[in-house]
Amino acid sequence: MSDAPLLQLALDYVSLPPALAMAQLLHEEVDIIECGTPLCAAEGLNAVRTVRHLCPDSLILADYKVPDVGGLSAKIAFDAGANWITVIGCAPLITVKEALEEADSRDCEILVELTGLQDIGERAKAWKDIGVRRVVYHRGWDEGNVDKRLWEQEDFDLIRQLADTGFKVSVAGGLSLDLIPRFEGVPISVFIIGRAIRETPDPPATARQFKEAIAACCG
Amino acid sequence: MSDAPLLQLALDYVSLPPALAMAQLLHEEVDIIECGTPLCAAEGLNAVRTVRHLCPDSLILADYKVPDVGGLSAKIAFDAGANWITVIGCAPLITVKEALEEADSRDCEILVELTGLQDIGERAKAWKDIGVRRVVYHRGWDEGNVDKRLWEQEDFDLIRQLADTGFKVSVAGGLSLDLIPRFEGVPISVFIIGRAIRETPDPPATARQFKEAIAACCG
Repeated sequence: MSDAPLLQLALDYVSLPPALAMAQLLHEEVDIIECGTPLCAAEGLNAVRTVRHLCPDSLILADYKVPDVGGLSAKIAFDAGANWITVIGCAPLITVKEALEEADSRDCEILVELTGLQDIGERAKAWKDIGVRRVVYHRGWDEGNVDKRLWEQEDFDLIRQLADTGFKVSVAGGLSLDLIPRFEGVPISVFIIGRAIRETPDPPATARQFKEAIAACCG
Repeated sequence: MSDAPLLQLALDYVSLPPALAMAQLLHEEVDIIECGTPLCAAEGLNAVRTVRHLCPDSLILADYKVPDVGGLSAKIAFDAGANWITVIGCAPLITVKEALEEADSRDCEILVELTGLQDIGERAKAWKDIGVRRVVYHRGWDEGNVDKRLWEQEDFDLIRQLADTGFKVSVAGGLSLDLIPRFEGVPISVFIIGRAIRETPDPPATARQFKEAIAACCG
């Protein structure tokens, strides 16, 4: 259905060539192409610029997790071709506001990224008050891969609470095909998938499987 | 004296040419050259790599404010020539730990960057327990420039508390020459200065003035 959650592909690489090959292979299969944090760290705006050239019609998210200098950081990412950028959840409120104002001035969007944040509840109201529309609920890479943190009931509860506050919620972090049904009834706006699509024998076919699984549980 | 605080120059630019010109002009006047967060965002590792070539003998800090994927993010920055990198304060503890282990494996260093963090006290003990040695107490750019947040007694108290916990503390954020004497008696390891050096008629002379002011109040 029209309000089924979107599928976002995370290009989490530390160099451009494999990221571009995967973007080329998948940009027509997914709704959003993400230049991942490590890719932005390694290649800078050149990553965003090049993905924009390869995928002129895609919605591109640059996952910078901006911590400060919100207006200028948003501006250079949007100028390079990003439609959406992330701001880190612990950033000062004024930084979120500056980034949001830059986004609103040009039909772009910012998402507050919650990796590692403890005081989500306290900050969420302030974000809402200044007009933030989207957040990313993210089980960090290191949390998943080293600490083996799973998706638990408390995650789903917190996501529901954020949605009840009025945010559109993206979810990320080690999401595999068999985890999708656990989100049934949880109001998700975007599923962010990385390795579970990229590291399969036929990534386009896997992307389609994700879309079907998402439509089946949340369509 | 030998334990006078160090002077770090922040190259906060969004493109390489002005950053390189300033690095060339000042790298023999300052103790640490910082590739600022916006520069890393804009130019990626190429910024670190190029500054390393221009300043082969300098201590270089890459201010990535790493939020996740701590080990790999540290590795690629150190491989590019950085000696020190920052990890954002809200990063999951495991991310700080992964970055620290990478640093310890190769005689490099990480600093936990406190921009925007509310629960510093609660997290500081955990950082100490895993072996973190350095933190950056930072009044954010947007906080200073838009919100006009000043350096207040509570900042100095918090810095002293962090030093008492055993951290070497760097300070940053709109520090001007006339603010330095206010740090008298506050245990500072590194003063990070940006515009107050770069945006003066004679940046090398200004850098020397900062070194004198620092030695006079904290030498």
